[in-house]
Amino acid sequence: VIQLIPVRGLPEIREGDDLAGLIAAATDLEDRDVVVVAQKVVSKSEGRVIRIDSLEPSEKARELAGDERDPREVEAVLREAKQIVRERGPLVIAQTRHGFICASAGVDHSNAPEPGMLVLLPDDPDASARRIRDRLQAATGVDVGVVVTDSFGRPFRQGTTDVAIGIAGVTPIIDLRGTKDRIGYELRSSRVAIADEIAAAADLARGKADGVPVVVVRGLQLAGDGTAQELVIEPELDLFR
Amino acid sequence: VIQLIPVRGLPEIREGDDLAGLIAAATDLEDRDVVVVAQKVVSKSEGRVIRIDSLEPSEKARELAGDERDPREVEAVLREAKQIVRERGPLVIAQTRHGFICASAGVDHSNAPEPGMLVLLPDDPDASARRIRDRLQAATGVDVGVVVTDSFGRPFRQGTTDVAIGIAGVTPIIDLRGTKDRIGYELRSSRVAIADEIAAAADLARGKADGVPVVVVRGLQLAGDGTAQELVIEPELDLFR
Repeated sequence: VIQLIPVRGLPEIREGDDLAGLIAAATDLEDRDVVVVAQKVVSKSEGRVIRIDSLEPSEKARELAGDERDPREVEAVLREAKQIVRERGPLVIAQTRHGFICASAGVDHSNAPEPGMLVLLPDDPDASARRIRDRLQAATGVDVGVVVTDSFGRPFRQGTTDVAIGIAGVTPIIDLRGTKDRIGYELRSSRVAIADEIAAAADLARGKADGVPVVVVRGLQLAGDGTAQELVIEPELDLFR
Repeated sequence: VIQLIPVRGLPEIREGDDLAGLIAAATDLEDRDVVVVAQKVVSKSEGRVIRIDSLEPSEKARELAGDERDPREVEAVLREAKQIVRERGPLVIAQTRHGFICASAGVDHSNAPEPGMLVLLPDDPDASARRIRDRLQAATGVDVGVVVTDSFGRPFRQGTTDVAIGIAGVTPIIDLRGTKDRIGYELRSSRVAIADEIAAAADLARGKADGVPVVVVRGLQLAGDGTAQELVIEPELDLFR
């Protein structure tokens, strides 16, 4: 049995806060737990927040924003984007510098520390996950995995699901190629994006509007390590694109 | 706390088996549980299985198969496909008649009842979920949700995640539009594909190679109903496509 345990009682997170220390104090971690942390609190603790009135919109940002969106917010999106994948009105799907493809290059004004601020993705979410993991280990002595998540839309299907944007002490993909089924055929769906499934599972325990940014996944029998960068697929190899 | 409980001890499922009755006998269900059932056993119980030697490959199937795949298997894929979305060598990404976009239109030889057989997706996975739900209720008296799942690849990211292809007694999407965050902004990621997150979560407890086709998700505080068809997005509305 796997348990999805919401971590309640965390304070509002601000720049410079010891996020891992606060998590360690709020819950009893066990070896092999996977601690799933919403990107928003990671970004806030790292100061990846900007004041919207510090941004001077470019011509392109004004054009995309039209009357429907604050052009300064669109400017933040353009600055965070390595490449614009799709634009429709003020909506922008972009590839981030990490290679992720998501709405607004991950720029978000919801759950910001205060009005007039935007939250950006961490500079290096895999490094964020690793820092949190190391700090949790130092604080508690237990060996846990960490997954940093965000809510991404996706092609072909309605709605968002949470996915892994940074990981540490968790394997991103379980490769079952070569695993035979009961009658000896190789399994078709042979590479499972387990880190994304962990992210999605944790979201079930989070309650989006409740502000529970950390969920512990207990009971996974997983070994391994890796990065969320391994989940990014090169366009030329992407048969679904 | 949410629990993901694998249901062990189910026999190999064959056409005509009372799948819901077998599930009810193998586990103690509680009101509000969500019973997550892998498509493979649903299809087998419904006889959605064909013998590969009953298929006469078309010219198109031979051409796609080349030397790399059994052309009769490709023929099955073409028959199940409403539209071919992408083809590369023998690999085919297709839209199924249900509107899902996935590898091989869901046709699979792994975990087939015996060698030389292919498993197809259920004709109407939402109807399958509803039948299973009704039968579980009749057998146990408890009111559960049902999610029928398959493992789908997706654009932009490596690996597969399990998604919902049929549901009953579960809402496919939680719409948080209009929900305000703590400082009053509308939440950006406002429509959560909760049925897909349930599917992904259940896969964590399944162990792909272990043959545990049914997982109970306990502790979700969900109401509502709907269909997996509501998760399909029209191409012209699909900003990510």
